[in-house]
Amino acid sequence: MNAEIIAVGSEMLSPTKTDTNSLYLTDQLNSLGVEVIYKCIVGDDRALLRDTVRTAISRSAIVIVTGGLGPTEDDVTRDAVAEALGRGMTYHPEIFETITGFFTRLGRQPAENNKRQAMVIDGAEVLPNDRGTAPGLWISHPGGAVMLLPGPPRELKNMVEKQVFARWQALLPPLVIRSVHYRVAGLGESDLDQIIGPVYSQFTNPATTVLAGPGDIDVHVRARAATAEEAESKLALVAPKVAELLGDRIYSANGDSLEKTVGLLLQNHNATVAVAESCTGGLLGMRLTETPGSSAWFVGGYLVYSNERKAELIGTPVTEPVSETTALALANSAREKTGATYGVSITGIAGPDGGTEEKPVGTVWIGIAGPDRNIAKRFRFPGDRGRIRIYAAQTALDQLRRRLLPK
Amino acid sequence: MNAEIIAVGSEMLSPTKTDTNSLYLTDQLNSLGVEVIYKCIVGDDRALLRDTVRTAISRSAIVIVTGGLGPTEDDVTRDAVAEALGRGMTYHPEIFETITGFFTRLGRQPAENNKRQAMVIDGAEVLPNDRGTAPGLWISHPGGAVMLLPGPPRELKNMVEKQVFARWQALLPPLVIRSVHYRVAGLGESDLDQIIGPVYSQFTNPATTVLAGPGDIDVHVRARAATAEEAESKLALVAPKVAELLGDRIYSANGDSLEKTVGLLLQNHNATVAVAESCTGGLLGMRLTETPGSSAWFVGGYLVYSNERKAELIGTPVTEPVSETTALALANSAREKTGATYGVSITGIAGPDGGTEEKPVGTVWIGIAGPDRNIAKRFRFPGDRGRIRIYAAQTALDQLRRRLLPK
Repeated sequence: MNAEIIAVGSEMLSPTKTDTNSLYLTDQLNSLGVEVIYKCIVGDDRALLRDTVRTAISRSAIVIVTGGLGPTEDDVTRDAVAEALGRGMTYHPEIFETITGFFTRLGRQPAENNKRQAMVIDGAEVLPNDRGTAPGLWISHPGGAVMLLPGPPRELKNMVEKQVFARWQALLPPLVIRSVHYRVAGLGESDLDQIIGPVYSQFTNPATTVLAGPGDIDVHVRARAATAEEAESKLALVAPKVAELLGDRIYSANGDSLEKTVGLLLQNHNATVAVAESCTGGLLGMRLTETPGSSAWFVGGYLVYSNERKAELIGTPVTEPVSETTALALANSAREKTGATYGVSITGIAGPDGGTEEKPVGTVWIGIAGPDRNIAKRFRFPGDRGRIRIYAAQTALDQLRRRLLPK
Repeated sequence: MNAEIIAVGSEMLSPTKTDTNSLYLTDQLNSLGVEVIYKCIVGDDRALLRDTVRTAISRSAIVIVTGGLGPTEDDVTRDAVAEALGRGMTYHPEIFETITGFFTRLGRQPAENNKRQAMVIDGAEVLPNDRGTAPGLWISHPGGAVMLLPGPPRELKNMVEKQVFARWQALLPPLVIRSVHYRVAGLGESDLDQIIGPVYSQFTNPATTVLAGPGDIDVHVRARAATAEEAESKLALVAPKVAELLGDRIYSANGDSLEKTVGLLLQNHNATVAVAESCTGGLLGMRLTETPGSSAWFVGGYLVYSNERKAELIGTPVTEPVSETTALALANSAREKTGATYGVSITGIAGPDGGTEEKPVGTVWIGIAGPDRNIAKRFRFPGDRGRIRIYAAQTALDQLRRRLLPK
């Protein structure tokens, strides 16, 4: 079953406002196996909203309209939806009494225009609002249902929890969802797609989505069925093959971040890490300390941005700051000076200046010193300064992760 | 003139993703006096996208479609828009050559499916993308124009700045814009609004927008008129008063980031800085090195996450890691050991654990050691671990900035 979400209000079309209600609603709907196929924001424009609602009703069984239920002339949701459905509206004095009671408890009186909030679309069920004045409306129609919910998040959430969620469930056949969330490092989006595309693109259930960031890709595989057994067997059509094809490029299968994965691996090994960062300036340390409890695996480190700082850490003058020798020496010194199990170094050219033909912008050496051996590798990352730094820290974390995997 | 924004991608319909491109685009369009009347998010569904584009074209002169320009089968934007306009598509080998060049510079090869990105809708102008593989397309039609822009924000912004903005202007009657962009640290959004709201809310032209992040607020004042003189006199109704009311809480009036402002101030003083970070784990160093050329002012520093690391830097055992004494000693040692003009330290409790009644989660000491004096201040920041760390680094930068202002 599909759903659409329509948020109403000209203020929602400003450059500074985002619609967070739709995220909450999507989460609730997805948990029932309902897919949100479209969402939009419409200003306080009755004709435009009417047309938008009409189109939504024609293609989706669940249509949610949020906001625009206030008492002013600007609040056009009730009128527009009634028009879209071709229905009339009736004044309900008992709703106005409830609104009056709400104001009385605040020591105030309702305004005349609050009566607009007591108008009910013919055939609608009224959804009382115990946190505000605007009641919601649930309107069943031959193709599904339209629901009008208040815009303020705390009123909306309360109404969904207490009154709307159960009505959604009643519309749906029993449904079970089984899913996996693989996270992948060290692979580009099109490379990944060439590897797993032939497997997942044969199926719409399970549905597979791929979302890529710099050096980081999320792969979601989600199966829906009437029973748990069936959902699991559908998931098994794709998930194990994707896992096999990607192998140890998958760093987590439960949504954990790379820094958390690395932290837990270190903890499992009773190991700690220290860093020596040049071009990333602290980004690697920041990521290693993002997870609560990171003091279990992160001891600290050195920001060796200038060559003097590098020389001071290594104990010898630095002739080639971006080189295998320097990366190895930095990682090793970070490890030895702190007593950490592993030392990780990053030294490179983040740009925009400082590149040469031999070492263009984006050239980064990553070193890892450990109890068994010290290794440094050269990488070449794309993009601008910010992106090169993100790639460098991401790759350093992934190199450390691979070092910690069982052989 | 009206605009609509259509964001494409099933991942944008997940419960965790918000569409931030539309905020940037709205801001840019509003600056030209163009109103965004509708925006929506559509999954990777060719027929639904085609219908959505058709409806948008019928009512708005400017229609922007973002995302879905990648190389995979999922990327349906080109096909759907061609269908909506009733036009064909042609393969442009020179675009594929450009894409091949992009990959070659990264030491890689394009995949066969990258050829999809070289398909051009008949009659479209190609908008080259120097930050990614997907070129944009601008398609004029009798009722206005449709433009296809890449989804990744850095590619989209770059393309709008360099190629799209001027094309929008050409569609519009002549309009002169004069604006200022104040950036403010160390003030909450409602406090700021109490100070400047009474001034700016009297005017719709100049229009003032306030956008708040943790410890960081952007205030845009923008005047529009037919002539430069008129726009300037309108801007003068609000901008100077806002500047006076906010005083030295404004850290930049040209959009510069706080880290860049601090870097330039240091450079003006012929001064350098070193850091000693505990709970921020490298975030302060990372920010101080975000600006190209930061080696002029940033020498490096110490990540003193564990108490052993703090003790090692200070040279004495640490009894109270989160205290004035420790903050002062860390800042002073960072300064002395590196020879930097200033040493900045951050030590605090980012949580979620480790808080006490006396020092609850969010308690952070920030120390600054300099040629004239050493000072540490205690702060209490709100929010979760991530937010507390952002506030701490932001406040440390702002404290250093204030130290560098002319007395």
